[in-house]
Amino acid sequence: MRQAIAILDSGVGGLTVAKEVMRQLPQEEIVYFGDTARAPYGPRAAEEVMKFTEQVVDYLLQFRPKMIVIACNTATAIALKRIRLQVDVPVVGVIHPGVRAAIKTTKNGCIGVIGTENTIKSGAYQQALHAISPHIEVVGLACPLLVPLVERRLYHTPEARRVVAESLRPLSGIPMDCLILGCTHYPFLSPFISEVVGPKVALISSADETAREISAILFHRGQLAPPGPPPVHRFFCSGDPAMFQAIALEWLGEQIKVSPVFWQMTRLSSS
Amino acid sequence: MRQAIAILDSGVGGLTVAKEVMRQLPQEEIVYFGDTARAPYGPRAAEEVMKFTEQVVDYLLQFRPKMIVIACNTATAIALKRIRLQVDVPVVGVIHPGVRAAIKTTKNGCIGVIGTENTIKSGAYQQALHAISPHIEVVGLACPLLVPLVERRLYHTPEARRVVAESLRPLSGIPMDCLILGCTHYPFLSPFISEVVGPKVALISSADETAREISAILFHRGQLAPPGPPPVHRFFCSGDPAMFQAIALEWLGEQIKVSPVFWQMTRLSSS
Repeated sequence: MRQAIAILDSGVGGLTVAKEVMRQLPQEEIVYFGDTARAPYGPRAAEEVMKFTEQVVDYLLQFRPKMIVIACNTATAIALKRIRLQVDVPVVGVIHPGVRAAIKTTKNGCIGVIGTENTIKSGAYQQALHAISPHIEVVGLACPLLVPLVERRLYHTPEARRVVAESLRPLSGIPMDCLILGCTHYPFLSPFISEVVGPKVALISSADETAREISAILFHRGQLAPPGPPPVHRFFCSGDPAMFQAIALEWLGEQIKVSPVFWQMTRLSSS
Repeated sequence: MRQAIAILDSGVGGLTVAKEVMRQLPQEEIVYFGDTARAPYGPRAAEEVMKFTEQVVDYLLQFRPKMIVIACNTATAIALKRIRLQVDVPVVGVIHPGVRAAIKTTKNGCIGVIGTENTIKSGAYQQALHAISPHIEVVGLACPLLVPLVERRLYHTPEARRVVAESLRPLSGIPMDCLILGCTHYPFLSPFISEVVGPKVALISSADETAREISAILFHRGQLAPPGPPPVHRFFCSGDPAMFQAIALEWLGEQIKVSPVFWQMTRLSSS
C-alpha cells in the first residue's frame, strides 16, 4: 500500500509546499491538513501553537503517513523539536531546508530572512544557520503585513507592491546576497520582493527547498513511492471548506475536494 | 569525539565536493581518499570499479566515519547500491543530489546530463530521474575529453573553450532548461559550458548539491558536528602525494598535508 506524506499548516500557506511536492515528487500521495479555523498561528502564544500543532499531528497520524511535514514556519520554529521526539516517522519542517539552500547559495556570508513576528522573534532561523555555520551574518525582519495580502488574494495588486516596498525598507543597505522567504505565503509576492531587493539577491523559497529535502530523506530511507497509478491526494481543513477550495483552485491550478473536520475540531477546542 | 565525513574519489575530482563540504559545513571534519594510483575510473570495467570502491571504503572505515560520500560519478553509478547494503552508516553518492536539484529547477521537464562514458552508459542519471519523476525528458551526453583538460589544469585556456564547445555540440537544439554537470571535474569548466548552452540553461553542480544533501541527512540523524575548534581534515592518496598536493593547493586554496598509502595499495593490488 502506498503510504502518504502528511503535510500540515495553520491554513492555506502550506499549499505552496504541497504544490512543490506534487511537482517534484509526482508519484507521492499527500494528506493535507489546514487548521483554517484557528489560523493564523503567527501572532499566537507559543504554548498555543505547540498544542495546536500536536493536535493536528495526532489527527494526521491516523492515516499512517511515512513522513510528517510541518509546512508552517511559525509551527516549525516552535514545535518541530518536540514533535520529532513524539512520533516515529521523520518530521520535516520548513526552516532547515531554506537554511541549507541559503548556505549553499551565499558567497559573502550575509543572509537575510523575512517572516512573521513569531518566526523572527523565535530566532529559529538564526539558530539553525549558526548551528551549521557559526560565522554567517543573519539579518531578520518581521513583515506582519504580507500574509494578509496573500490570504486576501491581493498579491498581484499595486497595493501589494507598495506594502512589500515599505515592509522591506529596513533591509536597504544590508549587504546580503540571499534572502530567505521565511513564510510559506511569501513566494506569491516574490516578483515584488525581487524588485525591491534587486536581481543580485537570490530569493530562497521554503516551499521548493522543503519538497527537495523530502525527496532526499525518502530516498535515503528507501521510501520513495514506486511507480503506479496517479496518486490521490486528500485535503482536510478545520474551517470553511469553500474558502479553502477556492484558494486551492487558484494556487494548485486544479479542483480539489476538501473534507471539513468538524467533529475533530469540536473535540480539539474543548480539550 | 568528533566523527568525520569520509569522502572518496578515484582521484582529485572529489576535492570539489570536499571544498563545498568545507564551505557549507565548516564544523565538519573530513577524511579524504583519492585513489590516484588507479585513476581514472571512467574508462574501467564495472567490476573493477566495484572492487576498487569497496577497497577504498574498507580503508576509510578504519576512521569510524559517520558517513561515506562517494564523490565520483562513475563509482556512484556502479557501486552506490551495493556499498549501501554493506556498511551501517549512510552512504551518499553524487548522482541523486544533482538529480533532485535538477527536478527542483526544471520548468519544462527537459534535463541534460553530461558525464564520463561509464556514467552516461550506465543510465544511472536517467534511472534516478525517472524513479522520482517518470515523465522527465533526459538527454545524456558523454564528454570524454573534459576530465583530462581539468586534470592537466588547462581548464582556463582557449583550448578548453574549444574542446568544450565541440564536446557539447550534440546538445544544440535540445530544449533543456537545466544541465547536470555529471562529473565532479566539470565545475571548473562551467564558464565555458555556460557560454555554449546559454544563460537560460541552469547548470547543476554535483559538488554543491551533494554537500547540501550531506547537511540534510546529518541534520535529520542528529549528527551535525557541534561547535568546537576548527576541524582538522586528513587526506590520503594511493599515487604521488606531491601531484595531489599541488592540485589541492590550487583548488582548495590552502596548503594541505597528504599522506601516501603505499602499504595499503600494495595489499590492494595483490588482492
